[in-house]
Amino acid sequence: MSDPVGPKRQVNSFDVAKLAGVSRSAVSRAFTDGASVSEETRKKVIQAATTLGYRVNVLARSLHKQKSDLVGLVASDLDNPFRAEQIDLLSKGLLRRGFRPILLRGDPGTDVADLIGSLLQYSVAGVIVTSDTPSQSICQECLDNGVPLVVVNKRDPGAPVDRVLTDFETGGRLAYEHLVNCGCKSLAVVTPEKSSYSVIGRALSFERAANSSGIPVVRIARGTQTYQGGLEASSFVFEHSSEIDGVFCTADYLALGVLDGLRLKHDLKIPENLQIVGYDDIPQAAWKSYELTTFHQSRAELSDVALDLLLTRMENPDAPPQVISQSVSLVQRGTTIPIS
Amino acid sequence: MSDPVGPKRQVNSFDVAKLAGVSRSAVSRAFTDGASVSEETRKKVIQAATTLGYRVNVLARSLHKQKSDLVGLVASDLDNPFRAEQIDLLSKGLLRRGFRPILLRGDPGTDVADLIGSLLQYSVAGVIVTSDTPSQSICQECLDNGVPLVVVNKRDPGAPVDRVLTDFETGGRLAYEHLVNCGCKSLAVVTPEKSSYSVIGRALSFERAANSSGIPVVRIARGTQTYQGGLEASSFVFEHSSEIDGVFCTADYLALGVLDGLRLKHDLKIPENLQIVGYDDIPQAAWKSYELTTFHQSRAELSDVALDLLLTRMENPDAPPQVISQSVSLVQRGTTIPIS
Repeated sequence: MSDPVGPKRQVNSFDVAKLAGVSRSAVSRAFTDGASVSEETRKKVIQAATTLGYRVNVLARSLHKQKSDLVGLVASDLDNPFRAEQIDLLSKGLLRRGFRPILLRGDPGTDVADLIGSLLQYSVAGVIVTSDTPSQSICQECLDNGVPLVVVNKRDPGAPVDRVLTDFETGGRLAYEHLVNCGCKSLAVVTPEKSSYSVIGRALSFERAANSSGIPVVRIARGTQTYQGGLEASSFVFEHSSEIDGVFCTADYLALGVLDGLRLKHDLKIPENLQIVGYDDIPQAAWKSYELTTFHQSRAELSDVALDLLLTRMENPDAPPQVISQSVSLVQRGTTIPIS
Repeated sequence: MSDPVGPKRQVNSFDVAKLAGVSRSAVSRAFTDGASVSEETRKKVIQAATTLGYRVNVLARSLHKQKSDLVGLVASDLDNPFRAEQIDLLSKGLLRRGFRPILLRGDPGTDVADLIGSLLQYSVAGVIVTSDTPSQSICQECLDNGVPLVVVNKRDPGAPVDRVLTDFETGGRLAYEHLVNCGCKSLAVVTPEKSSYSVIGRALSFERAANSSGIPVVRIARGTQTYQGGLEASSFVFEHSSEIDGVFCTADYLALGVLDGLRLKHDLKIPENLQIVGYDDIPQAAWKSYELTTFHQSRAELSDVALDLLLTRMENPDAPPQVISQSVSLVQRGTTIPIS
């Protein structure tokens, strides 16, 4: 009954591979009847496994030949409400479909081998990756081990896997078109200093659309993708405020900080002096102090599409991978005024 | 390789108990050497277990006599950023201590037997309950099965378990004292129509402190604990605005909605016409459009205390349960003006 504090970590195939001096997939093949592996490798693996007491895990695995009902959700920064809502929707959706979410952290600096080790240890029925960090290695390991996988809103992981993304290409272009429809003639785009794949994609698409019409765009890449980052960026926007008349902020948190900075620190009137468009449609964008014009992407729809992809992959492990792009729509509020 | 869609739910001890017509703990005892159980009950259990194919689970369990490195996090409404941050901190803290979080939903309507079944199925090393709903049954089952457990910010579950809570008693009283220090003579308290344990506790403590000094308090219990709820409540606050001079909102989301409603719909000046205090110190409370005076409770500290309690419980399963209360502190911003 009295457990020592701290778990006894179970020996996993990475430990065996390391000791045997072979790849993890060689360990896996050594324990799979009929799999191709040299006699020499098999011997090394068995020896290492015996030394480490790996036998128990192999036995346990053979007891549940069918997968568990666990689906791994690989996520980072749940302190970002936008990401947290995505995990919330995915976990509710999994439960509705009879699965159980197991939350795994994919923060920068995550030990990828350890992460993959636990996915395999718990015989997950599938994996949904929503974090940036270790996606390529996770994807390859899932493919190697026949674990169904979906990647949400992330760059191409360099492996043939199912992905769902919001259509930031179109989003960036629509932001440009809306500002032009509001009479803007000279623009700025505000992004965080370090952008995620989808956030920088919005800025690039906005710039491409403007440049192809010969409209100049000042790029302001400052701070973090937060309200505080937007507040910092607002001073740089203000420096350019005599030459620009429209600003696209690539995330709503940024936009709200820019808005507060321009109005409350620099005494600009929005939209009279400068028009502002955000992106994401977070709840605060609709708050009466902001009334931010922005682009809506449905988190619920994104989650449903991801879950559908995962279930389809479970049914057809060998189907070609799909990339599904989800559309976005303009939410016109008080920070822009279209010329009717 | 081709799995059918949808997991095959593993038979658990609840299924066996149901079929055998006995309690779940009788099933557990029937499979534990030396445990006290009548021969008749044992026979019923064995028969039901055989019918359902329960043997595999028992075998599997005996293979890992030591607990897994999983810790169950029972949570609801991750779409509430405040809760999501709590889960974020707890899951990071678990990983730092060598455990793995498994996220389990404890939403209203959760199948408690199913929830407990999976906690036992995955041989969790411990459980942290942060959701309101099924805490009593979970607590009792964890106690019966020797699973270490901590309950965070929830009412007494009626079982002798470790709990950590923020000191809302003191918080409510300090809110009253601060408004009095700001010269308020007639007060209102705004709560959601349905409050959680800790939120209604703040209101009751505020009212007690005021009443014991003979100061009247109007209670406005409207809508949900959200910005939108606060916006709704603001009209009721406005109706009383000629008779009151200070308002305590029991959650910051409510306070921000009240603030926007009073200023932007009803043209009141805050703090000149009415002083407002919130509770929680969410990030938006510090945003320049709000500058809300509020009470800070450290989510990081709450998480650390919860994890320390859990590890202590793992070391000493038989120690008497502890209830640890975490202090809160006033954050003075722009919605109140103390008389110096």
